[in-house]
Amino acid sequence: MRIALAQLNPIVGDLDGNTRRILAAIEESRGHGADLVVFPELVLLGYPPKDLLLKPHFIRRSQDALRQIASAARGVTALVGFAEPNPGPTGRSLFNAVAVCRDGRVVATHQKTLLPTYDVFDESRYFEPGARRAIETISDADGRAVRVGISICEDMWVDPALLPRSLYATDPAAELAQAGAELIINVSASPFVAGKDALRHELIRHHATRHGVPIVYVNQVGGNDDLVFDGASEVVHPAHGVVARARAFEEDLRVVDPWTAPRGDDVLAYPDTLSSIYQALVLGTRDYVRKCGFSGVVLGLSGGIDSALTAVIAVDALGPGAVHGVAMPSRFSSDHSLADGRQLAKNLGIDFRIISIDSVHAQMEAGLRETFAGREPDIAEENIQARIRGNILMALSNKFGWLLLTTGNKSELAVGYCTLYGDMCGGLAVISDVPKTTVYELARWVNARGETPRIPERSIEKPPSAELRPNQTDQDTLPPYPILDAILKCYIEDLQSADEIVSAGFDPATVRDVIRKVDLNEYKRKQAAVGLKVTSRAFGSGRRMPIAARYVQ
Amino acid sequence: MRIALAQLNPIVGDLDGNTRRILAAIEESRGHGADLVVFPELVLLGYPPKDLLLKPHFIRRSQDALRQIASAARGVTALVGFAEPNPGPTGRSLFNAVAVCRDGRVVATHQKTLLPTYDVFDESRYFEPGARRAIETISDADGRAVRVGISICEDMWVDPALLPRSLYATDPAAELAQAGAELIINVSASPFVAGKDALRHELIRHHATRHGVPIVYVNQVGGNDDLVFDGASEVVHPAHGVVARARAFEEDLRVVDPWTAPRGDDVLAYPDTLSSIYQALVLGTRDYVRKCGFSGVVLGLSGGIDSALTAVIAVDALGPGAVHGVAMPSRFSSDHSLADGRQLAKNLGIDFRIISIDSVHAQMEAGLRETFAGREPDIAEENIQARIRGNILMALSNKFGWLLLTTGNKSELAVGYCTLYGDMCGGLAVISDVPKTTVYELARWVNARGETPRIPERSIEKPPSAELRPNQTDQDTLPPYPILDAILKCYIEDLQSADEIVSAGFDPATVRDVIRKVDLNEYKRKQAAVGLKVTSRAFGSGRRMPIAARYVQ
Repeated sequence: MRIALAQLNPIVGDLDGNTRRILAAIEESRGHGADLVVFPELVLLGYPPKDLLLKPHFIRRSQDALRQIASAARGVTALVGFAEPNPGPTGRSLFNAVAVCRDGRVVATHQKTLLPTYDVFDESRYFEPGARRAIETISDADGRAVRVGISICEDMWVDPALLPRSLYATDPAAELAQAGAELIINVSASPFVAGKDALRHELIRHHATRHGVPIVYVNQVGGNDDLVFDGASEVVHPAHGVVARARAFEEDLRVVDPWTAPRGDDVLAYPDTLSSIYQALVLGTRDYVRKCGFSGVVLGLSGGIDSALTAVIAVDALGPGAVHGVAMPSRFSSDHSLADGRQLAKNLGIDFRIISIDSVHAQMEAGLRETFAGREPDIAEENIQARIRGNILMALSNKFGWLLLTTGNKSELAVGYCTLYGDMCGGLAVISDVPKTTVYELARWVNARGETPRIPERSIEKPPSAELRPNQTDQDTLPPYPILDAILKCYIEDLQSADEIVSAGFDPATVRDVIRKVDLNEYKRKQAAVGLKVTSRAFGSGRRMPIAARYVQ
Repeated sequence: MRIALAQLNPIVGDLDGNTRRILAAIEESRGHGADLVVFPELVLLGYPPKDLLLKPHFIRRSQDALRQIASAARGVTALVGFAEPNPGPTGRSLFNAVAVCRDGRVVATHQKTLLPTYDVFDESRYFEPGARRAIETISDADGRAVRVGISICEDMWVDPALLPRSLYATDPAAELAQAGAELIINVSASPFVAGKDALRHELIRHHATRHGVPIVYVNQVGGNDDLVFDGASEVVHPAHGVVARARAFEEDLRVVDPWTAPRGDDVLAYPDTLSSIYQALVLGTRDYVRKCGFSGVVLGLSGGIDSALTAVIAVDALGPGAVHGVAMPSRFSSDHSLADGRQLAKNLGIDFRIISIDSVHAQMEAGLRETFAGREPDIAEENIQARIRGNILMALSNKFGWLLLTTGNKSELAVGYCTLYGDMCGGLAVISDVPKTTVYELARWVNARGETPRIPERSIEKPPSAELRPNQTDQDTLPPYPILDAILKCYIEDLQSADEIVSAGFDPATVRDVIRKVDLNEYKRKQAAVGLKVTSRAFGSGRRMPIAARYVQ
C-alpha cells in the first residue's frame, strides 16, 4: 500500500486556502499512485485554531469545506483532520477528528481520545474525548485490504518506559493494535521544542516494535504565532526502523509503502540541535510575517549580538530586501555600536538608516525636569531612551507597513532586563525563548556556516550592554550569563524551588535575587510580543502565572 | 447548627498571609459560637493560582500551611479549600479539594468533580476530577449530627432548566442529596460578570427546592488580576428562600443557622447592575494596586469621559491622595480638554500636573522628516503623539513607583481605536471590558450619586475625540457607539457570524468593517494591560484568539 505523507503548512482559520492546499495534495498523491493520503491533525483548520473553535459559523463553514474535499477524494483515500460536531446531549460540542474521505464522501470518522491540556495545549477547552475506537479497512490499488488504526497526536503519547507517570489511564495505540491493526497512523501537530524530536522518535519506534506494526506519523509544518511545527513526518517499520522521513521545517509530500520501503540508510536525518533551533526561528519568523500579510520587517540595530542574530534570522526568513535596520544612537552609545550595526547591515545587504534620539531625549528631559527635580537619575531616565527608540521604530512600522521585530532574548525577558514599551515594542519577539548563552552559540554557528562571518565579531566579543547610562554593562546588574541561564532553566523550565537550585551548587543570594526578579516581572511579560517557542517552557501561552500574587520563597 | 460563612479575600500564592487570614476567621467564628466555618474554594492558595499549581514546592508548602490551620481547628469544624496531591498512578497530580479540619487535624477531604475548562477557567490543566463523593457528618454544639454534602463551585452548575446543554453528564449536588445530605455546602470562587448573580442565585434556589435541603454558598471576594470575585455568599432555605447574604464586593463573616434563620426580609440585596459593575471596577483596581504593592497610581487626564471615569474609580478605590493625574496637551488639544481635566482633578481633590508634548513632538517630527519625506501624514503621525504621552506617564510611573492606569474602553480596544505603546501603556486597564455606551451610563450614574457631579458635564456631553489631528472625532472612523457596541456584543460575547448580525438589522458594510477591525487588532490586544472583566467575554484570559490567522467572513 502506497501512502502519501502530506506534510502541509496550513494557515489557521483559512478554510478556503487550506482546502485548496489539501485538494492539491490529494491530486499530487494520486499522481504518485498513492492509495492513501494522510494529512496532519486538524489540517483543515490549521493548528491550533484556538477560540475560532467556539464560533458555530466557523465550524459550519469548515463542514462545507470538508464535503468539498471529500467529493474530490476519488481513486484514493484521504485522511483529513477536522473538528467534528458532537451531537450528544452533554460534553463539549466538538471532537478533534479525522475524516476518512473516499469515493467522493466521508465514509467514517475517528476521534482523538487523549486531549492534551497542559503547556500550550488547551484541548479540553474545546473537545470531548472520543468515545469509540474502530479499525478502518483501507484497500490498496491491488484490492488488498489493510486493517488500519487511526490515532491523533496525543493518542500516541503513552509509553510506560519513556513517560512513566502518565496523565492517562488508556493507551489508544495499544488498543488499536489489540483490535487487529496491521498499521497505525498518527496524525499530529507537534510543536517544536529543541531536543523533543529524539523523544518523539523513540515513542514512535517503541509503538512500532511493541505492537509489531509499521507506524505512519504525519506532522504539521509551519509557524502559527508562538508555535513552530517542525514536520519531519516519518514511517517506522517494526524491524527496519525509520524507512522514510519528510523534510524538517518545510512542506513535503512523500509517498511510501511501509512494508516494502528499503531499510533507511538514505533517510533524511533530523537536524542537530542548534541547526533545528535556527531553522525553527527562521520558519516561525517567515510564517508570522507572511501569514499576517506584512511586506517586510524593521528592527533596531544596536550593534549588539541580540539584534544581530535577529537580523540574520529575518534575512534568512524573508530575504535581505524585506529587512530594514535602524540605528538610533544616543549620547551613551559607543562608537563601536554604530559601526557594528552598519557593518552587520552591509554584511547582510539590508536597508540601514540612522536616526539619532539625542534631541528628542533632551526635550523629554526638559519636559520632566520640574517634575523630577531633586531626584537622582535612575531607571526612569534609562527607560525614557528605550521608549523613544520604540516610538521611532513603531513610526516606521506604521508608516511603511513593516512588522517591528523585537530583539530581546529569554534571559533578559526573564529577569526584566528590558524596557516595556521600549525595546519590548514589536509584533514578534524572534529570540525571546532563546537564552543568552544559546544566542552566543547560534551567533557563532551562523558565522561558521558561510565563507565570511555575517555577524561582526565585535558584536559577539564585546561585553553586552544596554548603553542607557555611561559605561553600563549587563553584568553590573545580572550574574554572568552562564550562571543566570542555568538558574533560569532550573526555575522556569524545571519548576525547582530556591532551595533545590541552591543545593545544586549556586550562590544562595544570587538564586534568590534571580527568582525575585523573575517573579516581579510577570507584568512585563504579560504585555510582551508573541515569542517563538523553542524550549520546554517559553514565556507565552504555555506559562500562565498570576501577576498580583505573593509566593515568596 | 451555626455556620460561619467566611468570605475572605486571599492573595494568590500568599500562603503565610492567607493562613493568617484563615486562622483569624476560625478564631472569630468560634467567638460567635459557630459549629462550622466554611471558606471559599482554594482559599489557602487564592483563586486562581494558575501555574503556581505546577510547582511541587508550592504544593508542599501549602500542605504545611494546611496542617497549621488544622491544628487550630478545635471546638469548631473548618472547611478549607486547598490543592490535594493525587497519589494515583495516572492523572493530574492534584485535586481541587476541601479539607475538613477538626480536633486539630484534617479528618477528611472532598474533591471537586466538575472542572471548568472554558472562558477564564483552566482547571483541567491542573486537576484530576474527584473520583469519590461522600457525606460528611458534622455535629453541632448540642451534639446533633448533620449529614452534610460538600460540593465545590462548578459541581453545582448543573441544572436542566437553567443550563439545558450541559458539559457534564453527572450532577454532584443531586448525588449528594440522594446520598442523604440534609445540607449542601458549595464553596466557590465565582468571578463577577454583570448580571450573573441572578443566574447564580436561581441555580442555588433550584438546588434547595429540588433537593429540599438548605444550601450554604460561600464565595471568594476580591480582585485577582483580571478577575473580580463578588462575594455575596448566601444561605438559601428550601421553603424560606434566601435567609442570609454576605456583603457583595467586601470581606464578610456571617454566622447563620440555615434551619432557624428567619425568613429574609432584611437580607442584603445584591447591588443593581450599574452599581455592581462600578463596585467590581473599584474593588478590582484597589486589589490589583494593593496586591502588587504600589503606593499610588498615575493616569493621563485627557478631558474625555474615559479617563474621567477611570480617575473616579481610582479615587474610590485608593483615596484621592494616591491618584496622580497628568494632562499632556499638544497642538491638537482643544482648550476644553485641559480645562475639563483640571476641573475633574479639582472635583476629585487629586494631584494634577501639565506636561506639554509639543516640543518632544516637534523633535520627533524633525528626526523622521527625512525618512518620511514625500509621504502624507497618516496614522503614523497620530501614534507618535500617543506614544510620547505613554513615555511621559511611564517615566512618572518608574520615577515615583506609581502604577500607570490605562483608560481605554472595550469598544475602542475591540476595533483597535487606540495606540499600542501609547494610550495602551499601563499595568491595569480599568475599564477595558466596559463598552463605551456603558461608560456613559456609569459616568451619569457616578454624577447622580453625590451632591455635586464629580465628572465635568462637558466631558460627558462633548463628542469623543482622540485629538491626534485637527477636528478629529471618534465618529470619523467608527459607527455611532450604540450601533458599534451592539455589533460588538453580537460578535464578541455571542460569537455570531457576520450574516447573523446583519440579519438582526445592522448595515452589512458596517458589520463587516467592524468585524474586520476586531480581527485585525488581535495583535494589539495580545499586548494589552490586564483588564478587569465585567462582561461574559472580556479580552483577556477568557478569549484566546490566534493572531496570524485568516478566517474571513
